[in-house]
Amino acid sequence: MQRLKMGMIGGGRGAFIGAIHRAAALMDNQIELVCGCFSSKAEVSLASGRDLGLSDDRIYTTYEEMIRRECALDPAQRMDFVSIVTPNQLHFAPAMMALEQGFDVVLDKPMTFSLEEAYQLKAKVEQTGRILALTHTYSGYPMVKEARFRVARGDFGRIRKIYVEYPQGWLSTRVELQAGSNAGWRTDPKRSGKAGAMGDIGTHALQLAEYVASQRCTSLCADLQAVVEGRLLDDDGAALLRFDGGASGVLIATQVAAGEENALNIRVYGEKGGLQWSQMDPNALYLRWPDRPMEVLHTGNGYMSAVAQINTRTPGGHPEGYIEAFANLYRNFARTVQAKRRGEKVPDEVDFPTVEDGVRGMQFIETMVRAGYDNDHKWVDWVK
Amino acid sequence: MQRLKMGMIGGGRGAFIGAIHRAAALMDNQIELVCGCFSSKAEVSLASGRDLGLSDDRIYTTYEEMIRRECALDPAQRMDFVSIVTPNQLHFAPAMMALEQGFDVVLDKPMTFSLEEAYQLKAKVEQTGRILALTHTYSGYPMVKEARFRVARGDFGRIRKIYVEYPQGWLSTRVELQAGSNAGWRTDPKRSGKAGAMGDIGTHALQLAEYVASQRCTSLCADLQAVVEGRLLDDDGAALLRFDGGASGVLIATQVAAGEENALNIRVYGEKGGLQWSQMDPNALYLRWPDRPMEVLHTGNGYMSAVAQINTRTPGGHPEGYIEAFANLYRNFARTVQAKRRGEKVPDEVDFPTVEDGVRGMQFIETMVRAGYDNDHKWVDWVK
Amino acid sequence: MQRLKMGMIGGGRGAFIGAIHRAAALMDNQIELVCGCFSSKAEVSLASGRDLGLSDDRIYTTYEEMIRRECALDPAQRMDFVSIVTPNQLHFAPAMMALEQGFDVVLDKPMTFSLEEAYQLKAKVEQTGRILALTHTYSGYPMVKEARFRVARGDFGRIRKIYVEYPQGWLSTRVELQAGSNAGWRTDPKRSGKAGAMGDIGTHALQLAEYVASQRCTSLCADLQAVVEGRLLDDDGAALLRFDGGASGVLIATQVAAGEENALNIRVYGEKGGLQWSQMDPNALYLRWPDRPMEVLHTGNGYMSAVAQINTRTPGGHPEGYIEAFANLYRNFARTVQAKRRGEKVPDEVDFPTVEDGVRGMQFIETMVRAGYDNDHKWVDWVK
Amino acid sequence: MQRLKMGMIGGGRGAFIGAIHRAAALMDNQIELVCGCFSSKAEVSLASGRDLGLSDDRIYTTYEEMIRRECALDPAQRMDFVSIVTPNQLHFAPAMMALEQGFDVVLDKPMTFSLEEAYQLKAKVEQTGRILALTHTYSGYPMVKEARFRVARGDFGRIRKIYVEYPQGWLSTRVELQAGSNAGWRTDPKRSGKAGAMGDIGTHALQLAEYVASQRCTSLCADLQAVVEGRLLDDDGAALLRFDGGASGVLIATQVAAGEENALNIRVYGEKGGLQWSQMDPNALYLRWPDRPMEVLHTGNGYMSAVAQINTRTPGGHPEGYIEAFANLYRNFARTVQAKRRGEKVPDEVDFPTVEDGVRGMQFIETMVRAGYDNDHKWVDWVK
Repeated sequence: MQRLKMGMIGGGRGAFIGAIHRAAALMDNQIELVCGCFSSKAEVSLASGRDLGLSDDRIYTTYEEMIRRECALDPAQRMDFVSIVTPNQLHFAPAMMALEQGFDVVLDKPMTFSLEEAYQLKAKVEQTGRILALTHTYSGYPMVKEARFRVARGDFGRIRKIYVEYPQGWLSTRVELQAGSNAGWRTDPKRSGKAGAMGDIGTHALQLAEYVASQRCTSLCADLQAVVEGRLLDDDGAALLRFDGGASGVLIATQVAAGEENALNIRVYGEKGGLQWSQMDPNALYLRWPDRPMEVLHTGNGYMSAVAQINTRTPGGHPEGYIEAFANLYRNFARTVQAKRRGEKVPDEVDFPTVEDGVRGMQFIETMVRAGYDNDHKWVDWVK
Repeated sequence: MQRLKMGMIGGGRGAFIGAIHRAAALMDNQIELVCGCFSSKAEVSLASGRDLGLSDDRIYTTYEEMIRRECALDPAQRMDFVSIVTPNQLHFAPAMMALEQGFDVVLDKPMTFSLEEAYQLKAKVEQTGRILALTHTYSGYPMVKEARFRVARGDFGRIRKIYVEYPQGWLSTRVELQAGSNAGWRTDPKRSGKAGAMGDIGTHALQLAEYVASQRCTSLCADLQAVVEGRLLDDDGAALLRFDGGASGVLIATQVAAGEENALNIRVYGEKGGLQWSQMDPNALYLRWPDRPMEVLHTGNGYMSAVAQINTRTPGGHPEGYIEAFANLYRNFARTVQAKRRGEKVPDEVDFPTVEDGVRGMQFIETMVRAGYDNDHKWVDWVK
Repeated sequence: MQRLKMGMIGGGRGAFIGAIHRAAALMDNQIELVCGCFSSKAEVSLASGRDLGLSDDRIYTTYEEMIRRECALDPAQRMDFVSIVTPNQLHFAPAMMALEQGFDVVLDKPMTFSLEEAYQLKAKVEQTGRILALTHTYSGYPMVKEARFRVARGDFGRIRKIYVEYPQGWLSTRVELQAGSNAGWRTDPKRSGKAGAMGDIGTHALQLAEYVASQRCTSLCADLQAVVEGRLLDDDGAALLRFDGGASGVLIATQVAAGEENALNIRVYGEKGGLQWSQMDPNALYLRWPDRPMEVLHTGNGYMSAVAQINTRTPGGHPEGYIEAFANLYRNFARTVQAKRRGEKVPDEVDFPTVEDGVRGMQFIETMVRAGYDNDHKWVDWVK
Repeated sequence: MQRLKMGMIGGGRGAFIGAIHRAAALMDNQIELVCGCFSSKAEVSLASGRDLGLSDDRIYTTYEEMIRRECALDPAQRMDFVSIVTPNQLHFAPAMMALEQGFDVVLDKPMTFSLEEAYQLKAKVEQTGRILALTHTYSGYPMVKEARFRVARGDFGRIRKIYVEYPQGWLSTRVELQAGSNAGWRTDPKRSGKAGAMGDIGTHALQLAEYVASQRCTSLCADLQAVVEGRLLDDDGAALLRFDGGASGVLIATQVAAGEENALNIRVYGEKGGLQWSQMDPNALYLRWPDRPMEVLHTGNGYMSAVAQINTRTPGGHPEGYIEAFANLYRNFARTVQAKRRGEKVPDEVDFPTVEDGVRGMQFIETMVRAGYDNDHKWVDWVK
């Protein structure tokens, strides 16, 4: 099988998430890195590309140059898709151009800087027929897929309650004032967009909740704030939620829970029982029942669903983690791209977040910001 | 030392909580059970009292009879205090009469049927100078006291976030329709009061949050509902909270989280770190720090605070539980009563919830009910 | 029902285990403390008894005096049984005298100072027909009883492997040199007997293994040592085990695992699955299966066996602990004594460790000591 | 930087461990797969290689052919090293030939079929000066490196106790009778060698213990058996251990603990405290202290040692797993090979198991087999 050829925008030396994307993409030997524009600083891009074993003629300084010059290459050489891992305000333009020039796209979340951009990007995807994957990493975990599968199968009956929380602590102080901090752009309205924590981690929480529960939020009541003095965007928030399937719930997202690392956690309860999944214990799924003992599923075992199994690389007891979850997004994206080229369809299990999830995420930001600072009105309808 | 003599109202055969109260009271050999009115059914009261080794002349059928006849006994025989473990609507009258007749009182929560009764009871306590202990069990756990101590000492800096949640699942179906269910009176507005879950477990959650964080809720935004069809009182709710010390937070209390047992959990975060305590893992306290490893404290060790140590009976690694937490309330109550008789004061560490906590609880119910069904106004000020 | 009247030998001020025995005995209101000889020092015994609300005429200075004078009392006043909580070398004589004088006995473990004494005590129990309960606390936990029940029912098929371990760390340094340390007599051959750690905690581990697995050890290969320099008795050991039901296993008992508290843990595996129970997480039982998810049982739930249920006081999610486990021994002992007086039999579920367990424990010490210092022979047959 | 070019022997379609090796090797973009002999069946090897995107001329049917033909290629094309992932009896010959022909080698454990082969291989490595990495995966985990670092730094004082256990359950029945089972060769003396479980997982446990504690086993007393009837090699064993640094301990390795997955666990205790690491919870390290709270370290945090940090890819709270541990071995191997070519030395932290570990492992097998079936002699000196 021919490996897919990836170009990368962003992710130069020192950028945490770029390295994760590459490890995830390369791990299964179905994708190779062929070119990149790793930084807007020419020397950083060059050095980063050389670190990665690229020849200088495939290392670019601007995304426009990269897309243009890759287009001009022989198809056997040319990149197949582009992975965009830049700050939020630099998602839209390269994604639009890549789609227009016939490249599939992997894009970090939140999808765009504004909701308006999200709608334009969605229209572009539909118009071009290209494939866009949005890296909501957590939905790549096999246990999250197992959870979704079991809810959809009805194991818990009708879902009544959805609690999702995402506490982090790394913004407990103004780390954004330190040079080189990843917090810089995330707390800057000019680069992050309307929201801080809600865009960075709230969108993950919302996507996880909707993905697992197969219900969509329809209205919410929120409280947003910048807890740390001097910060311009929210670093903390919570919301009461209502869903179209009849469930209600709570979403918590905060980056000032000092001491917390990345404690994303979801609990979903139906008439007959409930489930819990925690990102820091990702290979387990806890099922609670009123009338029989709690069950703890572990990935890699024969009792797991097909969708979990095809998103697992190791047998039971051999932990997988964040990079493998990420790799599942890339692998499923790659399988989909390859299948499309062969005129085939992939099975439903080969899934990944799409431009639709991206639009939902941007709507979530818009709704949360509208609700979270409004001290008069309680319930705010989902913004469309 | 002379043991205190306890009379009990309620808690006859089959009543779970009565047996817990007795075990808690008796465990330390500082209290003995001398009389009781265990049921309004004479034969049940008699049988229950005999089970407990009481002579028939100290087993009563009404609380009025009990209080009256105990008053007539020689002080060396007479009960010293009364423990009231009846449903909510039967707290006020016996408590008032006992106080008036000179008995100290241990009372189950929520303190009364209505907020108005709570104010009257508070006035009566103040007028009589008697001691009233309210059995918010969870504040009796040594680790909860440790948590409160460390927050107050400033280990975490200024407190910013308070998350408290109390998920249960036992009301996921209409168990109240089964004869003899403990759910009967709890879901009946005539016996429980204005609230169901909020009175039964929400008050515990609120008291725990305020006790640990040493901050008081000042306003909240809530969503209440009866999830299970046909139920007349709330079985589920959540609220966004604001506190007088500047913290904000979330409270979740639900009895329809199918499969959950009694998963009360609190997290408090300040500028410098955070803590977590879970009732189902009660001998541990988790401290998280941004810059050093998580610490896990275990009860019974030399590094524990004085207040935790005097509320612990076993050395490290020998678990204590719910009954010991309960017993701490009784022991601290008994020590306070004994000290008062000797004209002494107990140290601050010998604490237990009082009529003030009871009033806070009834105000909480009132505020939650007002806020939780109002779909227009967002923030509701604490009802006084 | 008339409460049983308990006299106590040992357990004066500052003695940890005496207070535990009393809390355990009193908690269920089926036993009352009527007299005691709490210390061989008259003033300590007197002060201790007064602390406990006893009148001076029921506080004794020697056990002989206590047994003699109690015998002379009116049966309505006289103690019914004696609880002996002294160091090992002081178990035998008071137990023998109590049995001879017609009292039932609760006795701390290891049962005696020597194996020879154990045989004599067993003969005395058989001769007098009195009841002797040995406080192997851990077999009083409801989850241990559940584990035993499920093994016996065949849930795991034939049992193949038994791993039991008991790591403590409190003897990592020579704490016995500190005045007043509980380690004093435990590390003194004159008061503890032939073994240190093996008697103190090894016997618990062995009893737990045999109780849960319903198999008896037949031979073992051991390594014993005093790790801490200057100590005269073993503070550490391990053994390879063989059982009469075909299982093999490992026993670890150490008091120099610095930092460990009381981490008794057992795992038993059969052909079809395995179980795990940990004393520091006592309300859970972990069942592992090759072909389906792990199950986690919690005490107090409807799916528990009858034997676990009658040894549980609280509903699911309300933790019980060490004192309740201890209280189960006392309650089952009391029920057995009461039933015997009425000429009735108690159900099999109302069990507690007996003189047989005591003999097994003393044989274990003998076997371990013989095997553990012998560097030539590998397998040592169980000493009888 | 030029990527290292890897050839693979073994690891064709369906072979679990081959896919893990490739993911681990490729993840960091420092190694590329250029050729392979994936199976001794030509059609399987071809199909496997094509799956992996190799051109047919780099897919071989025998390792001899592969090594010979790769030697003949231009250095810019030729593989740099060979990764050998075949059953035990097929390690020695290809490894010897690769070393002789100037290739570095990555080799699965146990290193060889017999101890004699191990000595020959070690001599060959020394003679050729080539680099050989042995994939004891578990020593690649950052937390294992942290544990080793802290022991070596003296955080726990002199080490006294080492407990290592490796329970699996997958051989609880005769799965080796199923066609295509990975158990086939592992339970076959002709392909596995003198030992079954001891070679497969016992060697991992021993290597982990020695790596973490920086002590070497000098003698042991063992009990080995084939628990499952009809099996020809051990599937279960345990040993009492003595170490050259004065520690003693216990090693448990079993593949018949039905229901267990891959529960490798190590505890090490010194004079001042102890540590615990569990492979199924790999991103945490538990430190227990006699006089202060337990600490729980999590990977990816600033308080981690340098050696742990350079073996970690993600920030705190983003779990890594088995494949990343494996990838650390490959990355450190690759860095070492690259450095050697540049005439540089790598820092001590860039470590991986070597031929020395391989010899230790084969000696362990020899010692365990000698000791484990000998019912007369207790302690057996380490076989050399």
